[in-house]
Amino acid sequence: MARRARASRKRQGTGTAVPASPQIQRQAPFYDLLDEEQAVRLEQQVDWILQDVGIAFRDDPEALALWKREGARVDGDIVRAPADWIRALCAKAPSEFTQLARNRDRSVVIGGRNQVFAPIYGAPFVRDLKGGRRYGDLKSFEDLVRLTYLHPNLHHGGFVTCEPCDVPVSKRHLDMLLAHLTLSDKPHLGAITEMSRAQDSVDMAEIVFGADVMAENCVIMGNVNTNSPLLVDRVVTEAARVYSSRGQGMIVVPFILSGAMGPVSTAASVAQAMAEAMMVCAYVQLIRPGAPFVLGNFLSSMSLKSGAPTFGMPEPVISNYAIGQLARRVGLPLRCGGSLTASKIEDAQAAYESADTMHSTMLAGANFVLHSAGWLEGGLCTGFEKLIMDADRLGSYQKVLDLGLDTSDEALARDAYEEVGPGGHFLGCGHTMRHYQSAFYEPALSHSENVESWEDEGAKDMRTRAYERWTQMLKDYEAPPIDVALREELEAFVAKRKESLPDAWY
Amino acid sequence: MARRARASRKRQGTGTAVPASPQIQRQAPFYDLLDEEQAVRLEQQVDWILQDVGIAFRDDPEALALWKREGARVDGDIVRAPADWIRALCAKAPSEFTQLARNRDRSVVIGGRNQVFAPIYGAPFVRDLKGGRRYGDLKSFEDLVRLTYLHPNLHHGGFVTCEPCDVPVSKRHLDMLLAHLTLSDKPHLGAITEMSRAQDSVDMAEIVFGADVMAENCVIMGNVNTNSPLLVDRVVTEAARVYSSRGQGMIVVPFILSGAMGPVSTAASVAQAMAEAMMVCAYVQLIRPGAPFVLGNFLSSMSLKSGAPTFGMPEPVISNYAIGQLARRVGLPLRCGGSLTASKIEDAQAAYESADTMHSTMLAGANFVLHSAGWLEGGLCTGFEKLIMDADRLGSYQKVLDLGLDTSDEALARDAYEEVGPGGHFLGCGHTMRHYQSAFYEPALSHSENVESWEDEGAKDMRTRAYERWTQMLKDYEAPPIDVALREELEAFVAKRKESLPDAWY
Repeated sequence: MARRARASRKRQGTGTAVPASPQIQRQAPFYDLLDEEQAVRLEQQVDWILQDVGIAFRDDPEALALWKREGARVDGDIVRAPADWIRALCAKAPSEFTQLARNRDRSVVIGGRNQVFAPIYGAPFVRDLKGGRRYGDLKSFEDLVRLTYLHPNLHHGGFVTCEPCDVPVSKRHLDMLLAHLTLSDKPHLGAITEMSRAQDSVDMAEIVFGADVMAENCVIMGNVNTNSPLLVDRVVTEAARVYSSRGQGMIVVPFILSGAMGPVSTAASVAQAMAEAMMVCAYVQLIRPGAPFVLGNFLSSMSLKSGAPTFGMPEPVISNYAIGQLARRVGLPLRCGGSLTASKIEDAQAAYESADTMHSTMLAGANFVLHSAGWLEGGLCTGFEKLIMDADRLGSYQKVLDLGLDTSDEALARDAYEEVGPGGHFLGCGHTMRHYQSAFYEPALSHSENVESWEDEGAKDMRTRAYERWTQMLKDYEAPPIDVALREELEAFVAKRKESLPDAWY
Repeated sequence: MARRARASRKRQGTGTAVPASPQIQRQAPFYDLLDEEQAVRLEQQVDWILQDVGIAFRDDPEALALWKREGARVDGDIVRAPADWIRALCAKAPSEFTQLARNRDRSVVIGGRNQVFAPIYGAPFVRDLKGGRRYGDLKSFEDLVRLTYLHPNLHHGGFVTCEPCDVPVSKRHLDMLLAHLTLSDKPHLGAITEMSRAQDSVDMAEIVFGADVMAENCVIMGNVNTNSPLLVDRVVTEAARVYSSRGQGMIVVPFILSGAMGPVSTAASVAQAMAEAMMVCAYVQLIRPGAPFVLGNFLSSMSLKSGAPTFGMPEPVISNYAIGQLARRVGLPLRCGGSLTASKIEDAQAAYESADTMHSTMLAGANFVLHSAGWLEGGLCTGFEKLIMDADRLGSYQKVLDLGLDTSDEALARDAYEEVGPGGHFLGCGHTMRHYQSAFYEPALSHSENVESWEDEGAKDMRTRAYERWTQMLKDYEAPPIDVALREELEAFVAKRKESLPDAWY
């Protein structure tokens, strides 16, 4: 209680400290778009893909050998298996699990009625109002980790908030891991691009959490894409062997641009994504039954003009709702959605597209939402202003989901009506005095005053206000406490690993 | 078919012609936020307000006399009545009705699973990128009517798309009615501010539709606010007497800023709004059983900093979902939501707030959505760019709602998988060729190409693109056909009425 009260005071002071809750625990119901018949038809399609079409496991004889040994039908590199068996394997994965954070108060529960928001992942570029668009670098990366740590509506640090392109590819995962572990104390993801980098991620987690804690808990997760359509390459299976064999989490995400990596149909793309992710989940459960797994989905529509992916459109909104239902039916935690947009800057297009995607992400019940803040240009660019604008709006979803509608006696406020008659005013009444301070969520970046005061303050648009806010947040930033010996051990690990690695830029 | 095909070609050419569907007929399910117990608790609160608290009918002895005659308990101007009786009266209103348009192809069905989008109503100011912010005038008003006519995603013209402040208050309703009836052929609303203006609206509708058609059909509606809390003034009851006695539609909208016109509680504000609107619905049904009625709701949260209304926040999102459920339970068509924002310009704030409000408006099942495009500054200002930006996005909701997810055999695309193997590409396959042209909705104003082409085109934000589009739309505008004699009769009516009215500016 004392800690919570302190956190609350600090939050009021800077707008940037400890979140009141480590993740959303929703009371509000899910939105079920599909009727039973539609859901069954999609599941039958999933089963048909698993059994008859099959999924290729490429360039990884060890993965194929495991499938063969366990009794799957393997033709070349295509694996087919009875759907019942794949579903039974998926059922071994927990429907809900906790990822511990270095600061245990920030540990997150993933799955069930919980929703966890993490920032953008993987953009090679960054953009801010003053600096413009440029390649990401380690300084930007570290600032993005700091901002993610500071923002109460982001529960999880993600991992590659931008690519630190000034660090060799062979080494940058080490700098990123060190930054997440020292500049923040929120949970984060690990590297997956190569088996040794995944191993470094797990090894550094072991330094922080200890082997005993790690044996019993998920403390780190890897997020990988399948190679849609219907292809799982060795990046996925090797990451699974590193993370899952230690009981750590795997998030497996088919990225399907309908019409390219899947049929030009939302229903087919959703079923295909389910089949791909379930097949990898089954593989993970063969490696270690009970290993935490998050079923991912990333579906995009396409511009007819150019074939470019589009975001915030009705098709991905529909797919979010559909995959949410299917994931609940199969009992797996879900990653989908985000604050996605194809816009190049933080204009109205960016916000319309992000909000429609996130609203559906929210009601669909996505348990882990990567890209929930900061995404621009279809994910090619991390926007500093966008990160803060999106993160502010996440608080609105948190309120809708956490509570739904409070219909308690106190909320029905009969005493207020006894005090205020027809035509009267509720501002001064007892019920209002009791509740006005907590009645409404107001994002810090929204400007709701009249046009005269807005003009007096310089007629700043939201983007300008966001720039002022994140630069101020960084000025006020204080790193979370860390044991000196632990920090030194992490730094020594990174230094030693860097010494052993050549500089590689690809 | 020929007409539809022509419309489709024209739409491709200018992006501005006849909508494919006069309104949304949703297949997608509603989102029910409340469980049964919560819904019942809110309904009990509604009944308590109707029976025990009562609602004042002020400054209209005729309304009070009717209530008394019918057996309500009238104390001073406060009317209380058995909830069962009020509910029985509300049950006389149709749960679904058609408002005819001058062009019958544009008639709209209001209620049930239908959703109708209309633009902003009532703003004294307008703003556009080049002209800046200024008082509305008749030229702006007429241009807004033209744009609303041209945009395929707006099904209904609304009425006061901006206040034509250069026309005397006593006469401007006549110019507005004439504009809706001649510059557009979509359905529209009539005046309500004074009984004679309501009468002019009905009289001009009669010129267009004829008394016989009007006796059997809704051809015009009036949209009025109650004076929350719990107060119905004579603007409402007089408008009801003009519109409802002729079997025309009434939309009655409690505007509740929680903490001012209602308790600082979403649940209480929602129940209060239900009670106020139901009481007026009952009054309408006493005047003419079966008269079309739309239950309105406009609930806003408040800035703690200033008491200013805020929009796009979680509380109105929650209230949209709750009122949607309650309206369906009582069987009345619903008006709620819109593309609402407190932002002064078409920036990211405007879009975030508008999209979150509209997404909930959509899933809540609002049957008539006033303010679905063009709203800025909490409704004080109509934005020309905002109108087009919002209207474009409405097409996305139309697609989500109309169809939900198509899970037909053709959508499951098994032939595509037989043609394309693991790791392949669906772009050229037969299924893609059959469907790519209709697979995706792409709003004209979204820019989804890469940053290089965006910069080559001048790095225009959405607001700039919207300016270019609406100015081009106005250049391309052609008025819908109208019989010359009819036009002359309408113009003669307006001229004659204007002659008989003094210029009044308040």
